[in-house]
Amino acid sequence: MAGGSGERFWPLSRRSRPKQFLRLADSAKTLLEQAVEAITPLFPLDAIFIATGEHLAEATRELLPHIPAANVIAEPYQRNTAGCLVLATAHLLARFGNDAARAVVAVLAADHLIADPDRYRETLRTALAVADREEVLVTLGIAPNRPETGYGYIEVSGERLDVPAAPGDIPVYASSRFHEKPDRDAATAYLATGRHLWNSGMFFWRISSFLAELSAASPQLARAVEPIAAALRDGDDKWVRSLFRDLPAVSIDYALMEKARRVLVVKSDFGWDDIGAWDALDRTMPLDGSGNVTVGDPVLVNCSGCIVVNEPGPAEQTVAVVGMDGFVVIVSGDAVLVVPKDRTQEVRAAVAELKRRGSDRL
Amino acid sequence: MAGGSGERFWPLSRRSRPKQFLRLADSAKTLLEQAVEAITPLFPLDAIFIATGEHLAEATRELLPHIPAANVIAEPYQRNTAGCLVLATAHLLARFGNDAARAVVAVLAADHLIADPDRYRETLRTALAVADREEVLVTLGIAPNRPETGYGYIEVSGERLDVPAAPGDIPVYASSRFHEKPDRDAATAYLATGRHLWNSGMFFWRISSFLAELSAASPQLARAVEPIAAALRDGDDKWVRSLFRDLPAVSIDYALMEKARRVLVVKSDFGWDDIGAWDALDRTMPLDGSGNVTVGDPVLVNCSGCIVVNEPGPAEQTVAVVGMDGFVVIVSGDAVLVVPKDRTQEVRAAVAELKRRGSDRL
Repeated sequence: MAGGSGERFWPLSRRSRPKQFLRLADSAKTLLEQAVEAITPLFPLDAIFIATGEHLAEATRELLPHIPAANVIAEPYQRNTAGCLVLATAHLLARFGNDAARAVVAVLAADHLIADPDRYRETLRTALAVADREEVLVTLGIAPNRPETGYGYIEVSGERLDVPAAPGDIPVYASSRFHEKPDRDAATAYLATGRHLWNSGMFFWRISSFLAELSAASPQLARAVEPIAAALRDGDDKWVRSLFRDLPAVSIDYALMEKARRVLVVKSDFGWDDIGAWDALDRTMPLDGSGNVTVGDPVLVNCSGCIVVNEPGPAEQTVAVVGMDGFVVIVSGDAVLVVPKDRTQEVRAAVAELKRRGSDRL
Repeated sequence: MAGGSGERFWPLSRRSRPKQFLRLADSAKTLLEQAVEAITPLFPLDAIFIATGEHLAEATRELLPHIPAANVIAEPYQRNTAGCLVLATAHLLARFGNDAARAVVAVLAADHLIADPDRYRETLRTALAVADREEVLVTLGIAPNRPETGYGYIEVSGERLDVPAAPGDIPVYASSRFHEKPDRDAATAYLATGRHLWNSGMFFWRISSFLAELSAASPQLARAVEPIAAALRDGDDKWVRSLFRDLPAVSIDYALMEKARRVLVVKSDFGWDDIGAWDALDRTMPLDGSGNVTVGDPVLVNCSGCIVVNEPGPAEQTVAVVGMDGFVVIVSGDAVLVVPKDRTQEVRAAVAELKRRGSDRL
């Protein structure tokens, strides 16, 4: 899943260049390239499909020339993650026929950061093995290391399950329930239980299991899969668009996972970060001696704990930050953002104001 | 005096566009234009001389096409205000002959803000009348309205002097001493005495009085005036440059005013502001309902007490400031500055770092 609206990392991210196209970690590669690289030892390139917004399809193909162009699935409208997975499933059925229903699919995010790719691949192997064994939906629950209020949580129930041996000895549990993003007190309590894991938004299932659970949880969505697959087989793009447009825009958590009868959780410890907003760069980028993160050689005078990004634009551009503690300053050619590190979620409000002003370019 | 290095209002000000070329008040005109306009009802245009850096002379002539080009005096090196006034005095002597020694000169700043030009002109009339009466140096002392730590002070002694009647009934005192910029406690004490006035850096004297006092206070500077005047008369520009280069770079306060035998102070109340640094915009520009000053239509979300300037550059450029209280954000085409409002004096340190990096353009 490589969609995304590009609001949270404005002004570096834009509608035409959302988060997965950014270099938000200490790497020369974009998050999308890193996401694909992390799984290429595990899957053949032609088995990797990338679902993204129609307006991003070409840029995605250019960034990943080794992925077959037809494997980039263009979403004609924004229909959230449930719509995305309905469309992607239809594509697989159209391409591979109904035999594909027995195949196991890994649904992965293109804009998260994986610190330990080896451990990540061990975790994926475990999840795929579990998903292949029975009619079940499998997800990754990340063992938390801080009382994070920016993530949803999955609460697991009971004892570690006895699942087929996989390398890495990675525990699997049954899920008991999903929790929305908690407040600080609840997050602290969650951290103490050891049974609350971060909801990673990554899933593993046989297509048949997905369709069966979706039919029970959100029949309208499930009923759309086969017609879209048929329209795709017929090459009737207009009909695909029409069917897709009629889907509700809901998340797969809401449409499926929270209502599913049987969800298993692979407890994961591969160093995951969803890089939710600018302040996450403190965790993903190297710090200087005063705790600052800098990109693009800005001038910092008497600053500490700041995140200062000076993205090279068409013209040379200098950024100077003086006497600041705990602030984010992002300069991106035609736009500048300044916000306290603990208020980066409010960047969306600035993007909303730009929309109101009709600044679509931004 | 229209020199200036352009450090305090970086990045809007540059070496090639220092403060007097900026529009730092709620006006379509630069400070230099405003300064000239304020005195044109009082002096004929060909009696207005403008001393500025050599690299600024052409831009100064372009900005003020109604001032005779020859009246723009180009300083070939930075020799502070004393050097500037030695050169300007030599120019007057070279141009008008030794009779000029009897003329009274008003030395005014080009980068201050005058709120009440009528009252300003009344004050100038009084100062000129006093300076014309006897061998004396006259300065304007601004009645303070806050315990400002950013200005020097002049302490006046004794009673109001009995001077020739001038319109406006503006009091004149003898000065007792000059004080450097005080700390907060001293500034508060100064405010209470009523005898401590802000040092405006504006002066009035007969040329003969200036030369006599300068001979006593700083003989090296005084001795340079006649040779420079002679070189100017001879059109020997190389010799002018050489003589000027040999001058020490000292302020006229240090070289003359603090050591002069007789200094009179005109107590002034025409609404003066030297617009010392970015935080001064709170006093010179209109505030929005949250106490913000904005220029160039930036997006402010949940901000208060901020100064945000988005100077239109060659390309369109958006500035968004979110959740900030009391900060300065300046965007000027190829440079961005962020600094707390109470630390704007430290901007010089950023400029110093840019010099160290060899960024002369900036």
